[in-house]
Amino acid sequence: QEISDTKFGKGLINFTAKDSSFSVKFAPRIQFRSFTSWDYDGENYEDLEQAFLIRRARLKFDGWAVTPKLKYKIELGLSNNDIGGANEYTGNSPRYILDAVLKWNFYENFELWAGQTKLPGNVERVISSGNLQFIDRSILNSRFNLDRDIGLQLHHKINLGENFVIKEKFALSQGEGRNIVVGNIGGLKYTGRLEFLPFGEFTKGGDYSQADLQREETPKLMLGAVYDFNDDAVRTRSNQGSFMAFDDGSLYMTDISTFFVDAVFKYQGFSFMTEYANREASEPLAMQPGETDFAEYVVAEGNAFNIQAGYLFDNNYEIAARYSSNDFNEVTNLLGLEEYTLGGSKYIVGHKLKVQADLNYSRQDGMSNYIAFRFGFDFHF
Amino acid sequence: QEISDTKFGKGLINFTAKDSSFSVKFAPRIQFRSFTSWDYDGENYEDLEQAFLIRRARLKFDGWAVTPKLKYKIELGLSNNDIGGANEYTGNSPRYILDAVLKWNFYENFELWAGQTKLPGNVERVISSGNLQFIDRSILNSRFNLDRDIGLQLHHKINLGENFVIKEKFALSQGEGRNIVVGNIGGLKYTGRLEFLPFGEFTKGGDYSQADLQREETPKLMLGAVYDFNDDAVRTRSNQGSFMAFDDGSLYMTDISTFFVDAVFKYQGFSFMTEYANREASEPLAMQPGETDFAEYVVAEGNAFNIQAGYLFDNNYEIAARYSSNDFNEVTNLLGLEEYTLGGSKYIVGHKLKVQADLNYSRQDGMSNYIAFRFGFDFHF
Amino acid sequence: QEISDTKFGKGLINFTAKDSSFSVKFAPRIQFRSFTSWDYDGENYEDLEQAFLIRRARLKFDGWAVTPKLKYKIELGLSNNDIGGANEYTGNSPRYILDAVLKWNFYENFELWAGQTKLPGNVERVISSGNLQFIDRSILNSRFNLDRDIGLQLHHKINLGENFVIKEKFALSQGEGRNIVVGNIGGLKYTGRLEFLPFGEFTKGGDYSQADLQREETPKLMLGAVYDFNDDAVRTRSNQGSFMAFDDGSLYMTDISTFFVDAVFKYQGFSFMTEYANREASEPLAMQPGETDFAEYVVAEGNAFNIQAGYLFDNNYEIAARYSSNDFNEVTNLLGLEEYTLGGSKYIVGHKLKVQADLNYSRQDGMSNYIAFRFGFDFHF
Repeated sequence: QEISDTKFGKGLINFTAKDSSFSVKFAPRIQFRSFTSWDYDGENYEDLEQAFLIRRARLKFDGWAVTPKLKYKIELGLSNNDIGGANEYTGNSPRYILDAVLKWNFYENFELWAGQTKLPGNVERVISSGNLQFIDRSILNSRFNLDRDIGLQLHHKINLGENFVIKEKFALSQGEGRNIVVGNIGGLKYTGRLEFLPFGEFTKGGDYSQADLQREETPKLMLGAVYDFNDDAVRTRSNQGSFMAFDDGSLYMTDISTFFVDAVFKYQGFSFMTEYANREASEPLAMQPGETDFAEYVVAEGNAFNIQAGYLFDNNYEIAARYSSNDFNEVTNLLGLEEYTLGGSKYIVGHKLKVQADLNYSRQDGMSNYIAFRFGFDFHF
Repeated sequence: QEISDTKFGKGLINFTAKDSSFSVKFAPRIQFRSFTSWDYDGENYEDLEQAFLIRRARLKFDGWAVTPKLKYKIELGLSNNDIGGANEYTGNSPRYILDAVLKWNFYENFELWAGQTKLPGNVERVISSGNLQFIDRSILNSRFNLDRDIGLQLHHKINLGENFVIKEKFALSQGEGRNIVVGNIGGLKYTGRLEFLPFGEFTKGGDYSQADLQREETPKLMLGAVYDFNDDAVRTRSNQGSFMAFDDGSLYMTDISTFFVDAVFKYQGFSFMTEYANREASEPLAMQPGETDFAEYVVAEGNAFNIQAGYLFDNNYEIAARYSSNDFNEVTNLLGLEEYTLGGSKYIVGHKLKVQADLNYSRQDGMSNYIAFRFGFDFHF
Repeated sequence: QEISDTKFGKGLINFTAKDSSFSVKFAPRIQFRSFTSWDYDGENYEDLEQAFLIRRARLKFDGWAVTPKLKYKIELGLSNNDIGGANEYTGNSPRYILDAVLKWNFYENFELWAGQTKLPGNVERVISSGNLQFIDRSILNSRFNLDRDIGLQLHHKINLGENFVIKEKFALSQGEGRNIVVGNIGGLKYTGRLEFLPFGEFTKGGDYSQADLQREETPKLMLGAVYDFNDDAVRTRSNQGSFMAFDDGSLYMTDISTFFVDAVFKYQGFSFMTEYANREASEPLAMQPGETDFAEYVVAEGNAFNIQAGYLFDNNYEIAARYSSNDFNEVTNLLGLEEYTLGGSKYIVGHKLKVQADLNYSRQDGMSNYIAFRFGFDFHF
């Protein structure tokens, strides 16, 4: 048996080639979850439901090749939740590939990305699902995020004075989500994200990882804003949600714009994040040509708000709380949802080996809806 | 090109991190099969059928992390036979993950398992498909085994006197099989297995590997008994077989219990295994509410018996023979099946590189049914 | 972090076990593509379509085990294009496995292959999709190639005099393509390929890699001829194309023979390849038993021709041109297609990191059809 100079949490494989022609970190990871929920029938919490789930299981390769200026990332989904979503637009095949992207630092602070990866949307979505402080992301994220898409991105960074950093991220993508094999439908999607870090960069990329595991010695803040325009979008949530396909196979198309502002703050074990999201369509009701009464699909227009904070104790236990609400425009007939979450985490080896639990109380349209208790672990090389 | 201190059959990758923070063995494997069969039409064996198949192809990761007391196993299926079985309960996605489980030795001889893996059912099933002495498992196993499920397991071991070992294994699982994404349907599944090893542990885990490749110097015996109760089961073979779904989408539920006893014996190249299985349901006939005549599904109630033995010659050739029979209860209208198998194996590098062939003669309901000749190889890092 | 004695383009992992019990090269690779096309409406090029695509993403393991005389190859597809084609014959599961094959040099120049891999068909097909000098293969290949199948192959090589090499390749396969789980349908498929290399072997297997990256110092030529007979074939293109299944589930069967001649020439950066293909069926019209008028399927009988050449400049830029035409027999009612392609490639690290673009002009049945501009990169460890 060999001895290898790696460390748990730094990749199952992690090396640089002796001739400096490439580096690689290869890491499998799994998330085990248990869900228990009670529905509210108007008077009582009843109808207990329980489930175990391998929520996520992934294989991830990243590093650089030829030169450290050329980075790559390939991430594959393995769990049935990861690969779900096969339809005629994905060739009726499961969606194994999450990321397949090259990132080329071709000039100074400019980086050009080509391939499939996350769009520069709300911060909560871009944070890896392996770096969360609750069992899963908020309801704002699940209904409003921009997820992944295929195309090109341009990233740039400006250093102002000693600390102040500004980051600009632009993406040009197909706009139908990941793993589409039928080519571009409708028009392209344009995404821009601007980030301000007035007190300098977070330690070890902490703005894109929840919980202040680095225990920032000075306050760190990231303020972000995103504007996304999906020209002739064909899905109810821009590049996510149902494809708005009529019975004759034609797709309804309308321009959809999405807007986010978000903030991340960390200081000495305390972490805070807040987000606002808004989605508007130029014609939200998907009606057959000639039809004026019956909309077969409605774009999920609306607003959402999320706020969460946590504190990490010296023993690497954390408690965190979150409030999220989604409000959809009246035209959608979708009910508003609020969720209160109280979470606890024990970070045994940071986010790489952790045990988490959270308790969720939800209200739909102002009425009690359900209580859910969730626990699980992350195991991540 | 590098030189690595591993060995064929010990994993393609096999190392311990220098800081002792984890160990890993990574091994791909494939099984190639050729099947030739002749059906019996009452007078002659005719209707020759021939097939080639990549029966199994797998990627397996196992080892420990943080401490040798925390073991993990991740096994992925690759072949079309491995990943088959997509349906609405698996998110209409292929079933890629076989195992994703952590095993924590939290106290003395106690081990807690969490995740998806094989249930502690009949020994033949728990033995890896890479460690068989025939081309495939018996018909008892294919109709009665408990396969994999998701949940928690508790394993414990007692050492009595110098040699006598008792193992107790308990599992609490969802009860619908592997890779279910819709949560628990019906009730939970409870499995208990008790093992007695009166002459001590088998060399290198030989009770869970067929053929006596270790050539036990003293006789070794394992006696096992399993009781499994699936509360409100929804599949015709407990957590396997067809989902008993009515046209309205509702699922028929009935309690199903499964019982096994088995024995494994090995001594100086001789290996012997026998198993008995029994399945009973509280209400085996799946009828629509209000209906009394027509059962849309029937739980495969019945008994089965399997006995097999082999002898490994000094040159690592083995001959083995097997008799298996399945008897289903009259209510099921399923025909009984008997199978006689004569097998030969050449273990070139143990079970890791082997060539096998077997000849099968089958009788259905007492009548000749088919003859099948099968050969193939296993290639396993 | 470790230092590993490998090199970009020689595999992410590449080592020989210290005890010489096996060697392995493991390499992931991805192909990113952008397509832009304009259809010709009779007067103008209009109707611009644009698409981004992860065309191929693969994991490949190869090397030898136990002895260098026993080689293996396992290649897995990851992209939605790679794994597409699920149907009842593949167990309704995605086709994840491309190759799973052992190659045993059991005697002198004889090699026995067992498993699933490419058949010894036209050279263009057997060349890896990672070693092409255009964005993708020709239209001859897409309509006439023999692709992969499962079974046995026998390869042999004769050295005549100092340089002259003759290679003979025979395959016996199921004849329904890759990843079939339902056993052999119809009869077997028999393939033979003969190759003549009058001026000796190409440097580093250059006959099976496009572009003369080795800059052959002396002229090298390979002449090949293939004859393939698919007994009772059930697909419209022998072991490819639609399964000719009638509504009652039965399959139409007819013998299909395919014939190829091809040539590859390379000298000092110049590369040339040409191919001719022909397919004939004994009864090309798939009609229901008793029916004489209406054919539900037609075997794609016809001829095709492909010719291409490229020149690699000292700076590793290459320009290449290709002309391909497909002519189908009148009975098929399929329109003939011609394609002119002009390509440019920059081989940064040979075929392992390259950027390519090509411009295609197509004519259907002698009429202008479309213009397509394609570009992309290959990233291959």
